Amino acid sequence: VTESWLVDAASPYGLANLPLGVAVSSRWDGPRVLTRVGDTVVEIAALADAGLVPDDLSWRGPSLNPLLARGPAGWAQVRDALTAALTDSANHGAVALASAPADSVKLVLPIQVGDYVDFYASEHHATNLGRILRPGQEPLLPNWRHLPVGYHGRSGTVVVSGTPVRRPCGQQRPDPGPEPIFGPSTRLDVEVEVGFVVGTPSRSGEPVGVDEFADHVFGVCLVNDWSARDIQAWEYQPLGPFLGKSFATSMSPWVVPLAALSAARRPVGSAGTSLLPYLRETEPWGLDISLELLVNGELVSRPPYDAMFWSPAQMLAHLTVNGASVRTGDLFASGTVSGPSLDQVGSLIEAGRGFLADGDEVVITATAPGSDGTTIGLGEVRGVVLPAATIRRT
Amino acid sequence: VTESWLVDAASPYGLANLPLGVAVSSRWDGPRVLTRVGDTVVEIAALADAGLVPDDLSWRGPSLNPLLARGPAGWAQVRDALTAALTDSANHGAVALASAPADSVKLVLPIQVGDYVDFYASEHHATNLGRILRPGQEPLLPNWRHLPVGYHGRSGTVVVSGTPVRRPCGQQRPDPGPEPIFGPSTRLDVEVEVGFVVGTPSRSGEPVGVDEFADHVFGVCLVNDWSARDIQAWEYQPLGPFLGKSFATSMSPWVVPLAALSAARRPVGSAGTSLLPYLRETEPWGLDISLELLVNGELVSRPPYDAMFWSPAQMLAHLTVNGASVRTGDLFASGTVSGPSLDQVGSLIEAGRGFLADGDEVVITATAPGSDGTTIGLGEVRGVVLPAATIRRT
Repeated sequence: VTESWLVDAASPYGLANLPLGVAVSSRWDGPRVLTRVGDTVVEIAALADAGLVPDDLSWRGPSLNPLLARGPAGWAQVRDALTAALTDSANHGAVALASAPADSVKLVLPIQVGDYVDFYASEHHATNLGRILRPGQEPLLPNWRHLPVGYHGRSGTVVVSGTPVRRPCGQQRPDPGPEPIFGPSTRLDVEVEVGFVVGTPSRSGEPVGVDEFADHVFGVCLVNDWSARDIQAWEYQPLGPFLGKSFATSMSPWVVPLAALSAARRPVGSAGTSLLPYLRETEPWGLDISLELLVNGELVSRPPYDAMFWSPAQMLAHLTVNGASVRTGDLFASGTVSGPSLDQVGSLIEAGRGFLADGDEVVITATAPGSDGTTIGLGEVRGVVLPAATIRRT
Repeated sequence: VTESWLVDAASPYGLANLPLGVAVSSRWDGPRVLTRVGDTVVEIAALADAGLVPDDLSWRGPSLNPLLARGPAGWAQVRDALTAALTDSANHGAVALASAPADSVKLVLPIQVGDYVDFYASEHHATNLGRILRPGQEPLLPNWRHLPVGYHGRSGTVVVSGTPVRRPCGQQRPDPGPEPIFGPSTRLDVEVEVGFVVGTPSRSGEPVGVDEFADHVFGVCLVNDWSARDIQAWEYQPLGPFLGKSFATSMSPWVVPLAALSAARRPVGSAGTSLLPYLRETEPWGLDISLELLVNGELVSRPPYDAMFWSPAQMLAHLTVNGASVRTGDLFASGTVSGPSLDQVGSLIEAGRGFLADGDEVVITATAPGSDGTTIGLGEVRGVVLPAATIRRT
């Protein structure tokens, strides 16, 4: 375990983690890139000014994208430099000047999102939803075990944790009414997801192989894919979810590097199945991330990310196999993480409990095993439900 | 008709049009914003240097986004200034210095695309596709006449006209085979569409009313939504099209301002139907745009945009009614434009003819009526099909 005067070795934000984020504060004249150590944030531009990490204007934000674009060698260089800077007590003074209490800064959206893609990679979730939406039919459609089903979401409405989410209005058709009605969603739900942030872009026409995942993906975040089930149910055929999802998608402010999660890697459910070659992993990219979903402080469930059927490496390989390129800042998410039991489901509709009321606060948190018995914290994604807006009469 | 020494009044690129685009050329040290007059392009930065239009760095590209963000008053100011500059023969010298033959510059993607949304707004197309994809069932699903069905596409693979498009590979399940196969699409198709470019952003939680369309949308382009029907058929349930579409979407380089299309406005098919209030237009935003689809120079069809069921104003109102915001540079497209007869369909699958072969060149062109008997040209969107790539063995 790498020790530092800054943090207890048992902290989920110890030196084995070193997540990156972006924040504003009255201390600085604009957004800055930070890492988090324990309950302290460290401004990387200040470390760069002290010659402790590579100097680069990308430390002054407004997003992680310039750093993400550097690729794996650049990420490793920065991670090594941060580790060295924060473990050598000769740097005590310089690090103290760069540091601030975590609760004294305002974390902002850490990436400029390119395309946002959402998958549907949990067999338990897809089965549960299939039973609810298509009762009496086979819950998994024929394609489900052959490819990671996914769709594009709205990148312009990805918001950072802490942003309130207004209850959407929209068309619904309450069963068995023949005509649709318009009004606030009464079935507002959450989806507990794990997100992946693309660093290195790929070129058009050149698929990213399933074993090239870590060459392109920088790190991991938590995602709440807010979902209005009533709007979604009426609109989604035949072209998929649209307004039932597009009003807001929340992401956690800290992006945890894949490099911090090497001890968390596990095979996924598809590993033992017959797959087309482009989806066969030779090294597992499932991750043992333990999530928690809380509503108003009450624990609703503990979704286990290690129970997924498709890995993020398989998702990226599929996403690009037709020649589609990825860009720095692209975000793709797992889809709802649900385990086999009722206390492991990642959405309220699966839990069979009521939907969200105005004022409800939803928090998703997660940890993963780090190396040498450490714990890696993935932070949280938080949001309060605001009442629906009154539609203007024009 | 506004006359100019630059162009014949009968040109589809007369002064009633004034489309905007972005190009590179050995004449300049970077991309420049242009307008087109006849077969001449006029560099607007040079007019600004001569004091003939408002001076602003946004004329030096790399996209139209800074101009788009100015909003309707700014667009009108620029349009008025361009008209004045190009009609006063006192400016002959300055305009000549700013001008170049249209074929001497390389037009690039004119906008930095935010989110790309594709609708499904032609009743004829949706009915034709429903019959093909779900034979024996009601071709239009129950929601279709109540809301403009749409979905998010991939903004990172929107390319400018002229960009070759590589045949995608992907999973397919040839009916009635039980197992999917992997390989190049053998059912590569086109979709003739009209696209709309958002200028003024909207705020989260504040829907854009159906009569606020022209406050937010700057102009119109042509779109080819390339579609691999075999990949799409296997993947699209339940979350919609994904890899069957995401490999490439082509757009025309010239964005024609809505201001040039005031004489082309027509009611759409939904005007006479019972709609929820947020979709009821008080002024029609259908457009009498006559499209042509050519493959290898052969006329395939003449899709009529005035035969659509949903207008672009209805599409934008729907897109935002849940509180989702739009950003400068967002692109949304109509979905395939098909008329009632076989020689008016906007895709090859509807035409009942073969799909695209490697080397085929697809061109979509369009015109609309302008004021005072003029014609407004919408340019073209062009692309050649390249053979599928050989997938690397890893």
